[in-house]
Amino acid sequence: MNDEEFEAAGQQMLKYVIDYHKNIRERRVMPDVKPGFMRKLLPDHAPHTPEKWDLLFKDIERVIMPGVTHWRHPHFYAYYALSTSYPAILADILSDTITCSGFSWASCPSCTELEVIVMDWLVKVMDLPEAFLSTSPGHGGGVIQGTASEATLVAVLSARTKFINRAKEKSPSMENGVALTKLIAYTSRQSHSSVERAYKIALVKYRILDTDEKQALRGDTLKKAIDEDRAKGLTPFFVCATLGTTSSCAFDNCKEIGIVCEQEDIWMHIDAAYAGSSFICPEYRPLLDGVEHADSFNFNPHKWLQVAFDCSAMWMKNSNDIIQSFKLEPVYLKHDNEDIMPDYRHWQIPFGRRFRSLKLWFVLRLFGIKKLQNIIRQDIKLAHKFEEYIRNDPRFEIFGEVIMALVCFRLKGSNEINEKLIKSINEDGRIHMVPSRVDDTFFLRLSICTTRTQNHDIDFAWKVVSEVADNVLKTTN
Amino acid sequence: MNDEEFEAAGQQMLKYVIDYHKNIRERRVMPDVKPGFMRKLLPDHAPHTPEKWDLLFKDIERVIMPGVTHWRHPHFYAYYALSTSYPAILADILSDTITCSGFSWASCPSCTELEVIVMDWLVKVMDLPEAFLSTSPGHGGGVIQGTASEATLVAVLSARTKFINRAKEKSPSMENGVALTKLIAYTSRQSHSSVERAYKIALVKYRILDTDEKQALRGDTLKKAIDEDRAKGLTPFFVCATLGTTSSCAFDNCKEIGIVCEQEDIWMHIDAAYAGSSFICPEYRPLLDGVEHADSFNFNPHKWLQVAFDCSAMWMKNSNDIIQSFKLEPVYLKHDNEDIMPDYRHWQIPFGRRFRSLKLWFVLRLFGIKKLQNIIRQDIKLAHKFEEYIRNDPRFEIFGEVIMALVCFRLKGSNEINEKLIKSINEDGRIHMVPSRVDDTFFLRLSICTTRTQNHDIDFAWKVVSEVADNVLKTTN
Repeated sequence: MNDEEFEAAGQQMLKYVIDYHKNIRERRVMPDVKPGFMRKLLPDHAPHTPEKWDLLFKDIERVIMPGVTHWRHPHFYAYYALSTSYPAILADILSDTITCSGFSWASCPSCTELEVIVMDWLVKVMDLPEAFLSTSPGHGGGVIQGTASEATLVAVLSARTKFINRAKEKSPSMENGVALTKLIAYTSRQSHSSVERAYKIALVKYRILDTDEKQALRGDTLKKAIDEDRAKGLTPFFVCATLGTTSSCAFDNCKEIGIVCEQEDIWMHIDAAYAGSSFICPEYRPLLDGVEHADSFNFNPHKWLQVAFDCSAMWMKNSNDIIQSFKLEPVYLKHDNEDIMPDYRHWQIPFGRRFRSLKLWFVLRLFGIKKLQNIIRQDIKLAHKFEEYIRNDPRFEIFGEVIMALVCFRLKGSNEINEKLIKSINEDGRIHMVPSRVDDTFFLRLSICTTRTQNHDIDFAWKVVSEVADNVLKTTN
Repeated sequence: MNDEEFEAAGQQMLKYVIDYHKNIRERRVMPDVKPGFMRKLLPDHAPHTPEKWDLLFKDIERVIMPGVTHWRHPHFYAYYALSTSYPAILADILSDTITCSGFSWASCPSCTELEVIVMDWLVKVMDLPEAFLSTSPGHGGGVIQGTASEATLVAVLSARTKFINRAKEKSPSMENGVALTKLIAYTSRQSHSSVERAYKIALVKYRILDTDEKQALRGDTLKKAIDEDRAKGLTPFFVCATLGTTSSCAFDNCKEIGIVCEQEDIWMHIDAAYAGSSFICPEYRPLLDGVEHADSFNFNPHKWLQVAFDCSAMWMKNSNDIIQSFKLEPVYLKHDNEDIMPDYRHWQIPFGRRFRSLKLWFVLRLFGIKKLQNIIRQDIKLAHKFEEYIRNDPRFEIFGEVIMALVCFRLKGSNEINEKLIKSINEDGRIHMVPSRVDDTFFLRLSICTTRTQNHDIDFAWKVVSEVADNVLKTTN
């Protein structure tokens, strides 16, 4: 593909992107293909000679789109939002063009420096503790991870190293594995599955703690668990608190948890993957109170801040903890600037890294904070609009509280009827949602996921839910 | 940014991409900025209101480019190649537009299915064992990881789970940490630092084994270590063999290692991050012999196969091993198709994932295998051309063997003089290389990194090396 062909194909692709968004309402939000559908549409060998662009371009509609779950569709209400935006797409073109692997400052200074700067910008926008600034007197700083699950894992591994080293200071002959058997981590029953998974990868003991009636982990629950475990001779070392759980968007009490963690000298990590973006609005920032006690904090700009996946923003109070866990230095990577600017490969699981700060930079500048705040406010307003519909219909009830852009609701009555409802809604196909469960209660989740979702879409979503509920109730009674 | 603004900005960006490549020779391959340079060029706060595209676009040249190490520059000979290409850029525009998070089949069926298909294509192109095909009777299959370091870690964690479970079958009350103290893994002194790092993350014991005179790990060395460790009561469980080491592009003897691993019932992982792409050429495929003994195999199409970073191709003989390590199932992720198509979140460290198979698909179709083979052959030919220059100059010597597109060489004499040489070459700035060291020998690495590097560039590189060597030798004597 030469320059001219690329330019022509690129222009065609730009138009495709615009049309995709413009006409997305004509598509079925959730595809109705069966597993294995694509094999019938493609040859079973790669081509030996180049194919024409036109053929490939046609295959986007013929092969790919029939099996796409349209996360950009205004009627997509599943999981949580995943962002993309024109500025983010433009930034990724530049990132793909430069294609450095920014594992060290020297491997591409701009890749490291822009990341340091935009992560500092976010500290100020979100009023995060100053200890998270790269310019703070300590060793704090921010880094872009791929996903919140990686951020959690990085935090767990850092804390694990710190506590194992501490145990070995006391008993130098102690084996790592034996030191490990003493460590215990905590999280709530409502935290994301990737937290438990991080504990499994770290191979540490862990306890899944109960929450209060608002699905929030409380300080006294944590304190009780810690006391019990210390009595057993264990060393509590890590807590992952969640702000905005995946199931029902509940908020752990980070103020209480943070105080316990400080008193008990335990690493506190806050996972605010989804809700974190809202903290750019002053009125939601109090939800983050307690972050001043955290050793690490993470949220995903790729969820609600218009940055295309993957961009997970993580800060640490002391980057030495993570560097100590990971640093290994071969000759071919030595350079002279390590003390002034971070070598980010020591801050993450993978070795190489893309130039991801570009998309954060493009988005922050081309949207501006005010517009990003407005998007979040508007989405939450839409959620409350849907909440109204639910509250005004005596067949339904709200589950939990609508704080962000997620409405959890259910038909009053059995779980079975609600299982039937969600199945029927997704079979109907006009909107797409996923269900969840807290303890014994099964419910539906309506999550506002796109900036194209508007008032009339919420009216429509309610119409669909209400109609399908009519049918479900009719056929059940 | 509305549709029209996006189209205009996108067109400007496409032209920028073309011009960047066209005029890249006018840029200094390695920037001459000092750490912290960018802070002076940018405000210390994110803007409150949207900025104009034109301003941001100008900042690419004003702020970003002065600090870019140009991996695309024909005079960039450092590390190993990182690919990008027009087809890959186009595919990423589409991927950013769809922005699904393909953690399950249902979250975007096309994202999973295209990955299964193109990974099967590569099995056939590279003549990999049939057990790696998704259609094989076992539980084999391929998955796209972000980096080779993640692939190694996934392999180590899978093997660790398998062996801990085995130990606990015998002694059900044994603690994970205690089982861990028995496990020992191996790799050679020449493997990438990320292998040792994966062992540290897994917290397993490991031994770094010596290599033969060609920097290759041999079967008897491994066997001896295993015997010694078994005699100590340890359980050898994992070997990472490398095909194409980072230091000097050496090849471990996978045939010998594989036989030992089979006899000893140990997990064999092959890391061919860089050299793996060459196995699409029948004449280089014999270097991969022994892969039939491997439990997992990995190479990076983003290194040498024209796919933009990140795209690391990994295959496993039995995906159940990895699924067992990671699987945790919340209600909101349940769907009905799990047995027919993989839920790739169980195959990797992160939870979410981008639609990365698109760029592999675009590249394979728009280049075709023949052209990709030609690129590899041409790069290796250029390496041999540079090798000729070195061999014909009595001041220099080749280190190791030129097998792929990497030439390791040095001035005959002390390490100090070679340290001076590489420092002077990089200060000179006309070309960029990094050095390495094997045992006590310090040497320079010339790695062909871009498809734009041509015969006359090699002549030029030699001219620079030769001139700088003249000066270094003059001032030293």
